[in-house]
Amino acid sequence: EKEDPSGGAIGRYGFPLAGAEIRHYANHTLSYDQAKRTPRWVAEHISSQKLLGKAERKHCKFRPDPSVPELFTAHNEDYLRSGWSRGHMAPAGNNKFSEQAMAETFYLSNIVPQNYENNAGFWNRLEMYCRELTKRFEDVWIITGPLVLPVVGADGKKNVSYQVIGKDDVAVPTHLFKLILAQRKGFQSPTLAVGAFVVPNQPISFDHPLTEFQVSLTDLERMSGLTFFPKVDHVQSVKNLCEVDSCSLMNFKEFTLYITGRKVGSARTTASLEKAMAELKEAGISPDSYLLKLYAEKKNELAAKESQVDKTGR
Amino acid sequence: EKEDPSGGAIGRYGFPLAGAEIRHYANHTLSYDQAKRTPRWVAEHISSQKLLGKAERKHCKFRPDPSVPELFTAHNEDYLRSGWSRGHMAPAGNNKFSEQAMAETFYLSNIVPQNYENNAGFWNRLEMYCRELTKRFEDVWIITGPLVLPVVGADGKKNVSYQVIGKDDVAVPTHLFKLILAQRKGFQSPTLAVGAFVVPNQPISFDHPLTEFQVSLTDLERMSGLTFFPKVDHVQSVKNLCEVDSCSLMNFKEFTLYITGRKVGSARTTASLEKAMAELKEAGISPDSYLLKLYAEKKNELAAKESQVDKTGR
Ligand SMILES: [Mg+2]
Ligand SMILES: [Mg+2]
Repeated sequence: EKEDPSGGAIGRYGFPLAGAEIRHYANHTLSYDQAKRTPRWVAEHISSQKLLGKAERKHCKFRPDPSVPELFTAHNEDYLRSGWSRGHMAPAGNNKFSEQAMAETFYLSNIVPQNYENNAGFWNRLEMYCRELTKRFEDVWIITGPLVLPVVGADGKKNVSYQVIGKDDVAVPTHLFKLILAQRKGFQSPTLAVGAFVVPNQPISFDHPLTEFQVSLTDLERMSGLTFFPKVDHVQSVKNLCEVDSCSLMNFKEFTLYITGRKVGSARTTASLEKAMAELKEAGISPDSYLLKLYAEKKNELAAKESQVDKTGR
Repeated sequence: EKEDPSGGAIGRYGFPLAGAEIRHYANHTLSYDQAKRTPRWVAEHISSQKLLGKAERKHCKFRPDPSVPELFTAHNEDYLRSGWSRGHMAPAGNNKFSEQAMAETFYLSNIVPQNYENNAGFWNRLEMYCRELTKRFEDVWIITGPLVLPVVGADGKKNVSYQVIGKDDVAVPTHLFKLILAQRKGFQSPTLAVGAFVVPNQPISFDHPLTEFQVSLTDLERMSGLTFFPKVDHVQSVKNLCEVDSCSLMNFKEFTLYITGRKVGSARTTASLEKAMAELKEAGISPDSYLLKLYAEKKNELAAKESQVDKTGR
């Protein structure tokens, strides 16, 4: 980069600030897009150790990031009744080790308008796959962000079209990307594997495998305008993640068992506990031994609590 | 900005590069948008002295900016037969004092897809108004750039929609902005005046005054996601440019006389010279004394040249 050759005349009153500088948080780092009121990208590092802990999302609240200027921040009101959920880019669930780290993922600087079903379904399963990778790779770096991609119209012209929501005109991405770089220690040199995925911001059913959404790193760079992992030595061979690992997400049965497990774990009444188990039966899925054990424990716990309430009248 | 608190783990392989850094040229400075393949903003400083000189656009060629990575640059082929002109953000005509400065405005990093009629008409007149300001203000800073703005649809939803052109998906802005900061020396303190304008990227006829497109600085900041002139002391009073100056562009007659003058000046044959004058007559405009003088001089020059050609047969 050259110095301002006009002796500073052009910059006398300062150059425009885009807020594109990098912002660091306890367990994620991001660049904020002041025009779209969403992150441009969010970077994380996860490991098996960071996933241990007891931080819980129920203690967290979505709120504007105090480090983003008021003129450029999104607000909860933009999302409410918009038809779009508040989708985490760095997931809350990657931050069980720290209440603060988890709370910071609820800043709206880490959030984009995301289709509800995508958020709770396919994207959730993709996030779980990332966490599962820490069992097989010591270090996993993840970069996540929104995209607005063109479509070719009937007239052959390419057009980018996206909704903006709320008073703050928060941009609803047409797609989300997730870029995974996984590193496994080796005898001589570590194995590095990369997977780049571009997923439409819409419901995606169980019959679509993750690999359907894989793109090359260069394609993702072209779509996003970003250069990723500039310090990776491109001479060293970086493997295709989906060749060295499964890239397969939980299937319908596994996912439904997992979701039922969470419902059972968080049930506060016998009625809601039984409802979760009834829904599982309706879906045609038999509980596995882990779920049966969880259910039995919870049933006893709630029965004790409810008889206590009966006795004290509270 | 906090340090990366994870002890560098998140950034081990580098954070994504958006290319948003500031790039300096001989007489303009810009931030490039690698995703849109256009500038994000282009800043200039002009003064009456910089507008003197003999640099000519006919010596200039549009071409990719060598400082922009190949993956993210636009190419001339993207624009050709796209239906959109290559619109300068920092105008060539502000750089008469330096061949190099003018040539650098033809880098595609300074160009956006612009409606032809807007480029040659309204926008051209706005650029001339900026140059005219240097007669009344010693220093004029100008920041120019593209915008993509939402429109409210029949369903009440707000949508941003824009075409992208060519293999490189160059984004066609829905609007262009120009922000003018003009400074006049005063007895005690200088007068600073600001005008912000947002102009649709479409033909705009002579019955639309410039003031119709004026917006507040804050509104422009919200639309663009940029903070402008951060070093202006906001305690000091900054005046409204359209109150301390005319903000009026050339009218149809003035503009047609000006354009005819340029055609006359660059005519290479008596036939093209006479065509320019005939078109003026057809438009119902009488040449002023300046144009008549220019015409007479050119007519003599071409007659001499053409009789020379007749004699030598060349
Ligand atoms: Mg989510
Ligand atoms: Mg132009």
